[in-house]
Parts: sequence; structure tokens; C-alpha cells
Amino acid sequence: MTVQAIAWSPSGAVRIVDQRALPEAHIERDLESVEAVADAIRTLQVRGAPLIGIAAAMGLVAGTRGWRGATRDEFLGRLGPLVELLAASRPTAVNLRWALDRMARVAAVTAGDGPAIWERLQAEATAIWEEDRAMCRRIGEAGLPLLPDGATVLTHCNAGALATGGIGTALAPIYLAHDAGRRVHVFVDETRPVLQGARLTAWELTHAGIPCTVIADGAAGSLMRQAKVDLVLVGADRIAVNGDFANKIGTYSLAVLALHHGVPFYCAAPSSTIDHALADGGGIPIEQRAPEEVKTVAGRAVAPAGAAALNPAFDVTPARYVSRYVTDRGLRQPPFGDGDRA
Amino acid sequence: MTVQAIAWSPSGAVRIVDQRALPEAHIERDLESVEAVADAIRTLQVRGAPLIGIAAAMGLVAGTRGWRGATRDEFLGRLGPLVELLAASRPTAVNLRWALDRMARVAAVTAGDGPAIWERLQAEATAIWEEDRAMCRRIGEAGLPLLPDGATVLTHCNAGALATGGIGTALAPIYLAHDAGRRVHVFVDETRPVLQGARLTAWELTHAGIPCTVIADGAAGSLMRQAKVDLVLVGADRIAVNGDFANKIGTYSLAVLALHHGVPFYCAAPSSTIDHALADGGGIPIEQRAPEEVKTVAGRAVAPAGAAALNPAFDVTPARYVSRYVTDRGLRQPPFGDGDRA
Repeated sequence: MTVQAIAWSPSGAVRIVDQRALPEAHIERDLESVEAVADAIRTLQVRGAPLIGIAAAMGLVAGTRGWRGATRDEFLGRLGPLVELLAASRPTAVNLRWALDRMARVAAVTAGDGPAIWERLQAEATAIWEEDRAMCRRIGEAGLPLLPDGATVLTHCNAGALATGGIGTALAPIYLAHDAGRRVHVFVDETRPVLQGARLTAWELTHAGIPCTVIADGAAGSLMRQAKVDLVLVGADRIAVNGDFANKIGTYSLAVLALHHGVPFYCAAPSSTIDHALADGGGIPIEQRAPEEVKTVAGRAVAPAGAAALNPAFDVTPARYVSRYVTDRGLRQPPFGDGDRA
Repeated sequence: MTVQAIAWSPSGAVRIVDQRALPEAHIERDLESVEAVADAIRTLQVRGAPLIGIAAAMGLVAGTRGWRGATRDEFLGRLGPLVELLAASRPTAVNLRWALDRMARVAAVTAGDGPAIWERLQAEATAIWEEDRAMCRRIGEAGLPLLPDGATVLTHCNAGALATGGIGTALAPIYLAHDAGRRVHVFVDETRPVLQGARLTAWELTHAGIPCTVIADGAAGSLMRQAKVDLVLVGADRIAVNGDFANKIGTYSLAVLALHHGVPFYCAAPSSTIDHALADGGGIPIEQRAPEEVKTVAGRAVAPAGAAALNPAFDVTPARYVSRYVTDRGLRQPPFGDGDRA
């Protein structure tokens, strides 16, 4: 059964699966305020580009429900800083800015006072979530032909149900192939330093009954050399118009290895991941996270206190390494234009 | 100050640094028996191809000191099974077999009873250790020209003082360059699953005052793309006559990335690592270690119990990826012949 990563709580809070606790514990949290949602995004309780956008949109609704009786000017005046607070919680994820812009635009054009604007925001956040769910399914359908019976897929990080409102992006074709009765085996890069592959992707695939094998990130090249990988399927956090894309650190290494071994390399993402203002990957800001994520594991030091560590969260893979982009508009090739707009 | 990984204890046991406890604690253990040495090798208390050979040779001496008064036949009869026990503790490391064969040969050709044979073995084990120390220095001298002032080096796993009886293999040129006053910066792959890079290489470099930066294994490709790596320098566990070599899992991926980015890739190892009976890398047995090494970190589950994990300890890098072999005989190119014999 596919896990559901986000929902409204009965009281109107944002109910999330706390992804820091997986795979040991399945803990749900109700986030009552915008600050709590921003904190959950920043601390990776909620992660995955599409899910971050949904969580931010829903967070704006949950966090303003206490003062939805305000006047129009009051409501909009207080909304602006909350939008900026959420936008700053993960600078690389374009979906976050996309969802927040959409919410802010809707608020601005809705007539009336707080109650009317708030109800419109609630409907819009739910729509963003439902559209994402439908988008995941369309990505899955677009990618399904890439996964014949018996296929072995290598994936990196988590671009699955835990990263979206639905069945994921890179994992969506895998879920649909499994549902269609095809035997698919997934090699899961553990994805240091945060281990989203081992902790999240392996968890949700196992949860859904799909066979998977976790590997250390360094083992991918050797597996490809032994012809054990039929294709690589990864997600994206931001895609430039020319097809260059940012994704979890380690994605670029996989792309080089795939090209070197003649293994097809696919990037799966919703159209909202395409940044139409960005000509190429050179302009993508790369979030540098705390060295302690590399230097400690589960609270234990794995490197000496005196050593430095570098912890870029993402890398940029140039378009020429990508066989095809699997989007809700089908199998696409850059440059991306108006037909690829979300 | 460079750490000393092995020594005789005052009572004649094998004194080691327990490498499982690093970087949190610097614990020395005295191994009294062959069984204790074999266990220490198997559980990675002692690791690194050259150090394993030295530890096994010294272990044979320490473990037979209790019955060195035996007759010749008794002594040799009991020695044989101990040699086999040690040989089975890490099947991939050719130095282990090399050191044990040398000890067994010496025992067989030494005249007299237990006392004479035992004393000869003690001298031989000490010689193996001292030769290794000298060999490390020669590797360092051979590699020194590869490291101009300001060089940035990427290394993988631990091929340093903690892997040898001296200043290491891949790290030896770095120690000598540092001693010569050259500024060298080392990027250290953390090297999952056992994290020898983060735990050991970063520890011994920091201990020696050499600047280093730990990175997740997946970050290496992105660093090379940004031209932040001048050269890659790794060790080897076994080298075939044609130059194919086995080293820690992830080495092959680095080799492909280095070739793709035009970064020189060097393999540093003592001549004893060359297996003259092995034509190419196809014949190197790859040790498969327990899936739990991948699925847990510091005792905490990082993957769901139901997921499989694959844990090859090594991969094989074909010779064509290697710019040069840095050995105690200088900078070498395969095929390796009699001039490369240990």
C-alpha cells in the first residue's frame, strides 16, 4: 500500500509523516502554524520538492485560520511576511516558490475580507495537492513504457510518495508497473548524508511490496559495469529551460556513470519543477547544509571534530546526460517551452 | 604526528589501534592469540591490505609463543592450521596470503626445533613490518612529484598510516609533501558503508596537521566538475599483472569520474599487492560483507528491516583508468613483470 505523506488534520492543521523518524518509526505530526511548517521543511521532517510546495500552501491556510476574521488589508498585510518565511525555508526548491506565488496571487485577486480570502486559499491549497496527485499519476503513465517486465532500476534519494502528495515522481512509473503485474527490481542508493534512499525510498517500496536492494552510493558504478542496471530514474528539484537540472548530491555522478556505461538516464518531475526564468543550470543556487550532517550519523561522530566537511545538498546535471524527461506532459526533451508550463 | 598502527607489546602480544573505535576514541588492544588476530582482521579492528599482512605475521609469532618449546614436527604441525585460519579472515587481500606464505616458507626451511623456528619467525615478522615501513616511504618519494604546492587531492577509504606499518600508501606522498612544506588539501570520501575515509583518513590527517575536508561519496563528481580536484590518489588491495586492481567499493566510480573530467587517477600500493598469478581483474574474488553494514549505522537502523542490501567490499578498476601506479619501485605502468616483484 502506498503511503500518504500529507493530509489535513480534523482541526485544519497540516498533518505530515515526520520523515526524520523513518524507517524506525511512523510518526504523524499536526503542524498548526506557518512557523511550524517552515521549521518542518527546514529540518527535513517534510522534504521532496513537490511535497514542500503542497506543505507550504497548506501551511499558509492552517497558519492563518486563527485570524481569518480579519479585514482584507489586515489579512493580506499579515500574509506577505508568512509567504516570505516559507519561501526562505528551502531556497533551491522551485516548487516552493511556485506554490507560494500561486497562493499569493489567488489571495490578491479574491474580492472581500479575510473570510472570503481564507476560504479561497483553502480551496487553492487543496487544489494544489489534488493536482499533484493527478500529476504523479500522469508521470507514472508517461514512464510506464520505460519499465518492461523484469526491469532493474537504479534510483537516488527519494522521489516517491514521501516526496509528493501522490505516488511520487521517479517512483511513480515503478508503482504503476508493479500494479500492472510487471516484475521490477529497484536498486536504491542510500544517498548520504541524509540517507533518504535507505530510510525513505526503501521504506515506501517495502511498504508497497516492491522488491528493492539498498546499496552504498559508491557501489552504483560497479553494478553498472556488471550490467545489473537497466535504467536510472531520478527526480529533480529544479530544471532549467535547456534541461540542466538540480537534484540531490550524487545525481550528477550517477549521470556520468550511466553515460559511460550506456545505461539510459531519466529525470522524472512535474512541469512545475521547470523554471522558465532560468536559461541553464549555471544559475541554480546550491544550498550548502551544515557540515555536521556529514560528520555525524545518528548522533554519533563519524569524523574527527577537527576535520572540515563540505555538504552541498544538490548538484547540477547538464541536459546532455539525460535520455528523456518524464513529466506529466509525457516523455519530453528540452528546450522546454510553453507546452511544458505547469 | 603520524599515528603508529601496530607494535609488539612488552609481553610479545600484537598491539593494535582498534580502528572500530576511531574517531571517537583512541584505544589500543593487545592481541595474544592467532584467533584474536584473525577476529581483529575479520571485524575490521585491523584493516588495510599491508597492515593485515603485518598483523597476521606478527600474530603467528604472538600466538605460538606459548608452545615454542615444542619439537620441530609438533611446532610445524600446529603452525599449518593457524596459517589457514589467518588466510581465511579476509579473502581479497593478497598481502595477507603473501605474508603468511613468507612466514610458512621461513618456518619450513629453518633447521632445528620449536625455539629456533619461533625465533626465526619473530625476526621475519619484524622484518615484514620494517620492510613495509621503508616501502611506505619509497611510495611517498615516488608520488611526491605528483603533488606540487597547492595541490588538492581526492582520496577514498583509508590507505594511510592506519592501513600500514608506516606512513601509508596513497597518503604517503601527502605526508611527505606536507613534511616538505608544500600546502596540500585533501578531500576525503567518507567511504560508506564502513566510513573508513571519515573515521580513519580524516582522523590521521587531522592528527598530523594536514588540512582535509570530508565529503559524502556522492559529492565527488560534482567537485570534479567544478575543477576542485587536481588528482585522485587511492590504494589497492590486489593488482593483476595487466594493472586491473581491486580496492574499496566506490573506487571504480571515482576512476570513471576522473577519466570523464580529465583528472589524473593514481593507484598507490606496495609491490606485494601485485598478484603475479593473476592475468587480469576478472579473477579477483570480491568479498561480500553482511547487509547489516549498509542497513545500520552506529547501531541504528537506516533502512527498513524488510529491505535487502548488497554489500560488496571491493570493486575492480580496469587498468585503462589508471594514469600511473605509485609503488615502492617508482611510478610504474603495467604489465607488471619481474621488476615489480616484492
